[in-house]
Amino acid sequence: MPAAAASNNRPGHQPGTVVRLPLTNSTEPDITVGNAGGALVRRTVLPGGVRVLTEAMPGQRSASIGFWVGVGSRDEAEGRHGSTHFLEHLLFKGTARRDAMDIASAFDEVGGESNAATAKESTCYYARVLDSDLPMAIDVIADMVTSALIDPEELEQERGVILEEIAMDMDDPADLCHEKFTEAVLAGHPLGRPIGGTPEAIRGVSREAVLDHYRRYYRPEELVVTAAGGLDHDHVCSLVRDALSKAGWELAETALPAPRRSAEPARIDSTGGVEVINRPVEQANVVIGCPALTATDDRRFAMSVLNTILGGGMSSRLFQEIREKRGLAYSTYSFSAAYSDAGYFGMYAGCSPSRTREVLDLLAAELERLAADGVDQGELAKALGQISGGMVLGLEDSGSRMSRLGRAELVTGEFIDIEESLARIRSVTAEQVQELAAELAAAPRTITVVGPFESPAELGF
Amino acid sequence: MPAAAASNNRPGHQPGTVVRLPLTNSTEPDITVGNAGGALVRRTVLPGGVRVLTEAMPGQRSASIGFWVGVGSRDEAEGRHGSTHFLEHLLFKGTARRDAMDIASAFDEVGGESNAATAKESTCYYARVLDSDLPMAIDVIADMVTSALIDPEELEQERGVILEEIAMDMDDPADLCHEKFTEAVLAGHPLGRPIGGTPEAIRGVSREAVLDHYRRYYRPEELVVTAAGGLDHDHVCSLVRDALSKAGWELAETALPAPRRSAEPARIDSTGGVEVINRPVEQANVVIGCPALTATDDRRFAMSVLNTILGGGMSSRLFQEIREKRGLAYSTYSFSAAYSDAGYFGMYAGCSPSRTREVLDLLAAELERLAADGVDQGELAKALGQISGGMVLGLEDSGSRMSRLGRAELVTGEFIDIEESLARIRSVTAEQVQELAAELAAAPRTITVVGPFESPAELGF
Repeated sequence: MPAAAASNNRPGHQPGTVVRLPLTNSTEPDITVGNAGGALVRRTVLPGGVRVLTEAMPGQRSASIGFWVGVGSRDEAEGRHGSTHFLEHLLFKGTARRDAMDIASAFDEVGGESNAATAKESTCYYARVLDSDLPMAIDVIADMVTSALIDPEELEQERGVILEEIAMDMDDPADLCHEKFTEAVLAGHPLGRPIGGTPEAIRGVSREAVLDHYRRYYRPEELVVTAAGGLDHDHVCSLVRDALSKAGWELAETALPAPRRSAEPARIDSTGGVEVINRPVEQANVVIGCPALTATDDRRFAMSVLNTILGGGMSSRLFQEIREKRGLAYSTYSFSAAYSDAGYFGMYAGCSPSRTREVLDLLAAELERLAADGVDQGELAKALGQISGGMVLGLEDSGSRMSRLGRAELVTGEFIDIEESLARIRSVTAEQVQELAAELAAAPRTITVVGPFESPAELGF
Repeated sequence: MPAAAASNNRPGHQPGTVVRLPLTNSTEPDITVGNAGGALVRRTVLPGGVRVLTEAMPGQRSASIGFWVGVGSRDEAEGRHGSTHFLEHLLFKGTARRDAMDIASAFDEVGGESNAATAKESTCYYARVLDSDLPMAIDVIADMVTSALIDPEELEQERGVILEEIAMDMDDPADLCHEKFTEAVLAGHPLGRPIGGTPEAIRGVSREAVLDHYRRYYRPEELVVTAAGGLDHDHVCSLVRDALSKAGWELAETALPAPRRSAEPARIDSTGGVEVINRPVEQANVVIGCPALTATDDRRFAMSVLNTILGGGMSSRLFQEIREKRGLAYSTYSFSAAYSDAGYFGMYAGCSPSRTREVLDLLAAELERLAADGVDQGELAKALGQISGGMVLGLEDSGSRMSRLGRAELVTGEFIDIEESLARIRSVTAEQVQELAAELAAAPRTITVVGPFESPAELGF
């Protein structure tokens, strides 16, 4: 792991440390911390409470930039589900200075990639461009975030586009299975709702709801800008500040960033259960799982090791048992998702409809075996190597560094450099993995099946 | 485009030139050529006729490596369809020295990514690893390529896995639509067949067919090894040579590489037509297109510009017309595929079933408008910028450089460095784009629709 040992001689925190980002609404002094490969992470709070975090990667000729607003589908009021995602689409439809074609052309004509992602707890508008095009990217995204018109006619056109997006996702049996599982496993928690909303909700979303959302959340104190690649922190800060000012945002010197969400674990009243979604497909898609850890839970490193061993690659237990040994599935894996106050764990497989119950039982059996018998040192060492190697390989991607910064600022409230992340992974013990497996195996199980079945009874439930 | 102007002072060809790779079975002296960003491309023919092409990228800590065999689904005899892909799966199931778990663990335990891809004209086994793990990667892949056991029991298990893989693809309406379109538009040419074979064919493939394929094609003169990233060419050559020798391959000093496929365009007797595949889906998927250029056709640079203007991004005509202006689709684009002696062009959209005919007519109308009215200089300049910028951004990815080398050696027979590629793109004229559009617009049209329809008549055909 040569890159992990790298450091730099600039002032600031030493590699191997964890930097607590200011946890509440404050404007502490700038933070600077070295990271693997000679990268330098810096954080500044601009006037208005706008947070800017960058990671300068030596030798890169491109940069990834993201404008994050700390609001997602979980924050939508009843009757307004899907409005966060609807708004995200509308930001591309035009501003006071640019129409939809201008926005699209700005990135296309330099070969850049730009897009947006609405998530459950945040919304991010991002781009990857050559370093020399970074000023353009910041100017265009800042314009979208500050000055979208939300034109009523454009809104009606876009309603159709979003309905097609939802239809596309619902026609993908694996997507559908994951979506329904998430809803069930989080048992009524707002995090369980589909990000895009339902077709019925989208047909009913009003311009007022979207505008209201825009005015309420797209404000300086909610905005986090992160960037990684070939860049200079001070230059990014000044570009962001200029672009926001030009757009007419008031950036008060004394304004503070919005506080982070509470990390207090929510009570998820999951009782488990089996849901069957009838589709005339060639292959059944199944997920089985339970509520799990929040994003700041100390056991998240053990969860990463558990997922790697159980279902994280070709040598994982699920892959070996269900695909290699029995030929029952092409795709099988385990996964977990972690949010501020809730999370979940699951195992997936796509299999022949006639083998659905057998595969579900095999998935459950592998989790139970991990809980009962634990892992040996060889398997643990392999998993640690796999995670560490993957982390170091991932360092070359400016997009994932940009996303890590956004997550650190918005969700966990701490930036952990690569060296410390590796150290935490390497310190996970076999006992910790087994304990976590035991907890997951003991939890009420939520099972979701998409396939040619009328009811759970058909599968012997 | 700063990276495009980069060069290096090492001996060899100058940037901005095209290097003709030896076109037939010969062992010409080593070739060395500089590429953008200080990269150095080298080609060596080892004893046995094994070709090794590498691109050393300064500053990279990881490397991508691929072992290519110049045989794909198009080469399968009647009754053996799907055997190339079947064999690809079986190479992961064990060799004389390693079982399936050993192979999977070798890459997993260092966090590397490894996989294989069966294509219509080649099969590639590849991995991305830290530079220090390159010797391991070469040793393992060489073992798979030379010494697979093709165990009869493992073969039966894998038959189930492949059937699941095909079922998964067939459950994806967009994949299904593209697959059926390709088959129809190539009108009986072997390139039109699905790579994985049909479920019926897979159930019938015998071990003899797979073994026969393995013995016949997995030989030194058919093998091309390409690598890009943090590496040294001579080291890669010696690792490949050692690994193949250790595996018992005879590498005769006088052996010559296998000749490339003929680039003589095949006669595609396409008469066009409409095919409807009935599926009870939320969204109709449509493709409309025709046969087009081969991989070595001089007009391929114009095709790239045409695709960019017509359907290559958010500012493209299809996106603007069908999504932005009318809200009829979430996803719409145009595409082309080019093989040694045949190719095709198409336009795709996913839309509400009730708007299917309207969307098909709009797709056709945009192609016709391009053919009739051409493009103006502003639109052309934007497309050239988009392609050039995308090329330069893509340079950071060692995997795509590795693939480019494989394609150069196996398909086109020439390595075109980035500077020359950019120059060729920039030399495309509006007239060339319009001429090509006119040719495509005049060709018989193949239309494929996946949706809740019983017949073409339902769509007014």
